[in-house]
Amino acid sequence: MKLLWSPRSPFARKVAIVLHELNLQDETTKVLTNLALPITPPKSILEVNPLGKIPALILENGKVLMDSRVICEYLNSSHNGSLYGTDYEANTTHLIWQSLADGLNETLLLWRTEINRGDTKSTAICANFETKVGATMAHLNTNIQQFRQEKFGIGHIATLCVLGQLDFRWSSSEWRRSFPELAAWAQDVSDRPSVKENPSAVEDSSTAFPIKAPQIQFFKE
Amino acid sequence: MKLLWSPRSPFARKVAIVLHELNLQDETTKVLTNLALPITPPKSILEVNPLGKIPALILENGKVLMDSRVICEYLNSSHNGSLYGTDYEANTTHLIWQSLADGLNETLLLWRTEINRGDTKSTAICANFETKVGATMAHLNTNIQQFRQEKFGIGHIATLCVLGQLDFRWSSSEWRRSFPELAAWAQDVSDRPSVKENPSAVEDSSTAFPIKAPQIQFFKE
Repeated sequence: MKLLWSPRSPFARKVAIVLHELNLQDETTKVLTNLALPITPPKSILEVNPLGKIPALILENGKVLMDSRVICEYLNSSHNGSLYGTDYEANTTHLIWQSLADGLNETLLLWRTEINRGDTKSTAICANFETKVGATMAHLNTNIQQFRQEKFGIGHIATLCVLGQLDFRWSSSEWRRSFPELAAWAQDVSDRPSVKENPSAVEDSSTAFPIKAPQIQFFKE
Repeated sequence: MKLLWSPRSPFARKVAIVLHELNLQDETTKVLTNLALPITPPKSILEVNPLGKIPALILENGKVLMDSRVICEYLNSSHNGSLYGTDYEANTTHLIWQSLADGLNETLLLWRTEINRGDTKSTAICANFETKVGATMAHLNTNIQQFRQEKFGIGHIATLCVLGQLDFRWSSSEWRRSFPELAAWAQDVSDRPSVKENPSAVEDSSTAFPIKAPQIQFFKE
């Protein structure tokens, strides 16, 4: 299998962790694919996924799966994984956590794009994103004590990936201070091999176009 | 059940069609909930879904499901529906179509937000969206002949909802001229009761903030 992937994509990281959980990491070739919103994706990417996004997984038979949710569910089902909860109730809980974590990641990506517009950024849109990010982080922090008791699975993986993205792109937010329950849980699962061997990216200055580190403050004091 | 819903949301329409397919429309109260990106969602919405999005479904026991994908899958499973394919292969195909159609809808929403920035819009971002929308529509048009042979399900519903959104918000695109296979299929399923009774919204001028009808041309002549 070939995985179109970037260490900067939290959604590609989700797939990489799932591959590792299913012991498939050695059967998959990662193809580094850097995409960013202002640049139109090249034809070679659009031919794989017309939405021009990663992750995309190319199976041995040439079939393409796109979208981390579709890919992870396919991998888990086709390899008899148990990453989607042990019963119906747990399955729904995992899918809700995945949805919240993925939605948070999408909001963070859009917010960062907005901030990088500089003088033309919309303060109303930024305020909208700040409210949603704060509300969602607070919700996850309140509920992680209960969710951490579920068997490790896709909801946990998605949540780890958004927390890793906060470390990578929003380090000045110091989210651990505002959300200590999430921080404690993230620390506890950080030694899991699939997580340890697929770390989130580390901020650097060698990106194709320079990124200003955005400032967020979760709680106004 | 209560569904936070708007006739303008293609994702809320997906859920409404699924409810109808499962004969649950009379067990669900639709609560009109208008949200739009520049305006920060009210606290009452954030308490239901901290991501501040619709659709959200509130079950009789108070549990909340958010995100059309999570809601539709829950409804289908909990009511023994057959909207997710009759076998494993068909299931994956439905999920891929849903992902492409939902991704297309998300891109259209972002593109429209971009166009409505007026003088401050980014031409690079608009070009990016235009390319992805054109590539995805072409992909769906090429493959609908095969997909229409599958039992009607979530992939078809998601596709109908994005085509309805093109009629609602992008009527000047005349997408039927560029994508006749999709147009023929959409016509053929338009008489299905679940589709007929849950139409896409019709463009009007009574929106909270005035919308310029965006111009898109799929094929440059």
